[in-house]
Amino acid sequence: MSVLALDLGGTKVAGAVVSRQGDVLHRMSAPLEGRRGADVGGLVTRMAVELSGRAGGRVEGAGVAVPGIYHPSTGTVWAPNIGGWEDYPLRAELSAALGPHARVTVDSDRACCIVGEAWRGAARGSTHAVFLAVGTGIGAGILADGRVLRGRRDIAGAIGWLALDRPFRADYVPVGCFEYHASGEGLVRVARDLLSEDAAYRGRLRGRAAALSARDVLEAEAAGDPLAARVVERAIGFWGMAVANLVSLFNPEQVILGGGVFGPAARFLDRIVAEASRWAQPISMREVRVQVSELGADAALLGAARLALNAAR
Amino acid sequence: MSVLALDLGGTKVAGAVVSRQGDVLHRMSAPLEGRRGADVGGLVTRMAVELSGRAGGRVEGAGVAVPGIYHPSTGTVWAPNIGGWEDYPLRAELSAALGPHARVTVDSDRACCIVGEAWRGAARGSTHAVFLAVGTGIGAGILADGRVLRGRRDIAGAIGWLALDRPFRADYVPVGCFEYHASGEGLVRVARDLLSEDAAYRGRLRGRAAALSARDVLEAEAAGDPLAARVVERAIGFWGMAVANLVSLFNPEQVILGGGVFGPAARFLDRIVAEASRWAQPISMREVRVQVSELGADAALLGAARLALNAAR
Repeated sequence: MSVLALDLGGTKVAGAVVSRQGDVLHRMSAPLEGRRGADVGGLVTRMAVELSGRAGGRVEGAGVAVPGIYHPSTGTVWAPNIGGWEDYPLRAELSAALGPHARVTVDSDRACCIVGEAWRGAARGSTHAVFLAVGTGIGAGILADGRVLRGRRDIAGAIGWLALDRPFRADYVPVGCFEYHASGEGLVRVARDLLSEDAAYRGRLRGRAAALSARDVLEAEAAGDPLAARVVERAIGFWGMAVANLVSLFNPEQVILGGGVFGPAARFLDRIVAEASRWAQPISMREVRVQVSELGADAALLGAARLALNAAR
Repeated sequence: MSVLALDLGGTKVAGAVVSRQGDVLHRMSAPLEGRRGADVGGLVTRMAVELSGRAGGRVEGAGVAVPGIYHPSTGTVWAPNIGGWEDYPLRAELSAALGPHARVTVDSDRACCIVGEAWRGAARGSTHAVFLAVGTGIGAGILADGRVLRGRRDIAGAIGWLALDRPFRADYVPVGCFEYHASGEGLVRVARDLLSEDAAYRGRLRGRAAALSARDVLEAEAAGDPLAARVVERAIGFWGMAVANLVSLFNPEQVILGGGVFGPAARFLDRIVAEASRWAQPISMREVRVQVSELGADAALLGAARLALNAAR
C-alpha cells in the first residue's frame, strides 16, 4: 500500500509516493514560476497523476500540505501567497483527477509538519506535541491527544500573533508581536534597526541593510559579529518565551522547532530551552523535550502522507 | 435520571443532585474547617452518600470538581491547598461508598468550569471554548473540538505561567508572569507597590497596604480612586494580552472570564476586549465572543454534573 503526498509551498510544489512505513518511493518537484489560480491547481494535479502512474496507478489515497488554511467542510484552501487561492477547490479538483479509489486529504503545512514529526521524526510516538515553524513568518501545528487542533475556523495555532512584550506597538498590526520580532523577517528588521542606530559599527553587515536576509544575520553571528549577536540574543528571548507559553498551555511531550530559520538556528537550542525554563510551568517544562525538526524539508510531505494513510484505513 | 455533582474547593465542598437537563434538585455545602487528608475525603464521601439518599438512591453517576490536578489513569488527585492530597485516591473512595451503579468521574475545577459553561452557561453549545479563571491564582479550562485539553500529565491550561512582559523578573519564579501581575493576589501586590512609591497619595487605600484584598482594590477603583485605577489599568493590559493569546492559539468560539475576580471585574469586559483586539490574530478575534461567566459559583458544579452524565450514557 502506498499513498501520494504533495507539499505545496509559495514557490514550488514537492511530491512523493510514500509507503505505508513512511519510505519515500518516488519524488518530484516543480517550481510555481509565478503561476496563480487554476494554473497552480493544474500543476499540482498533473504532478499527482504522474506520481500515481509511477506507483502503477495503485495509490490508495493522496495527502496535500498547503501554505495557508484548509476548510474541511468545503474542501477549499486559502493560501495568501498564491494568487487567486482565496477559496480554491483543491480537494474536488484532485479527487476528479485521481478517481474514486484515491481519497484526497488536505491540511495546512503546519498541521502536516507536526503529524509528520510525530510519525517519523523528532516527536515519534507523541500524541501531545507542537511544531513551531519559524521561517519568513511564524506558525504552529499542534497535536493534542493525537488530533490536530483546528479551532472554530481552522486557524488555531496562529502563534505569530502571540503577545509577548509590552507596550503594544503599531508595528505589530500587520503580523503580530512575536512574528514582528522573531520571524526570519523579524531578524532582518531588528538588524536593520540596530544598523541604523549604531554609527560606530564596522562589522560584516555594514552597508548591507537593504539586501539583508535572515541567513546573513545568522552567518554573521556564527562568525562572531557583535551586532548580529545582539539580534540573535533578542530572538532567543522571544523564541524562549513562545516555547514556554506552548509548554504551559499544552503540557506537551515535545516541542519541535522547524521552518527555514531552524536549520541554521539549530545551534541555539540550548539557549532557547534555558530561556523557556525561566518562564514556563515548571513541571511541564521539566518533562517536555524541545528538539529541532528531524525531517526538515520533508516534514510536511511525510505528514501529508500520514494523513492520507489514516484516511485510507 | 439524575447525577451527583460535587465541587471541592480549598475551603468548602458544595454538592448537588442535578437532573439530566441541568436543573439543580438538591443542594448541600460544608466548610472544610481545616480538615486535611482522609478527613476531607470522608466529608466529600458523606455528602455524596447523603445527597444520593435525597435523590432516592437513584443517581446514575457522580462528578467531582477538584482544586488541582486529576490523573485519570490512577484516579488520584493532587490538590495543593488541601493538606495530604498529593495523590489522594478520591475516585476509589467515592466509588466504594456509592456502589457499582454510580460511576464516579473526577476532573479539575478549571475543566469542569468550561464544560459547565458550554452546557448551560455563556458558552452554550460551543465545542471550542476557553474558561479563564482569575481568582487568588489564574488557570484555564480549555475545550477543543468538544474535548477537554489535558496534555501529557493533565496540567495543560497552566495559563498563570504565560510569559507576557520582558525582561524576566525573579518575582515570576513562584507563580509565573501573568499570575504575578494579574491574579487577585497580583492586584494586591501591584497596589502595595504603588502605595509604597506614591508618598503624595491621599486616597481611600492609604495606610491599608497590610490588609488589602483584591475586592478592596476593585471597590476603590469603582469609587474613582486614582491609584486603584492605575492598578486596574495594568491588570486590564495583562488580561487583554492573555485573552489575545488564547484567541490566536485556539481560535475558539468563546472565551469566558470567571473566577473570584470576575464578578467584580465584569464591568471591565469592554476594555479587556479592546486590549485583546490590538494583539490577537484579527480573523479569530473578530469571530470570538468574550463574555463573563453566566454560571458564576455554579460553573464547576454543573460541569461536574455534565461529565457524570456523559460517563453514564
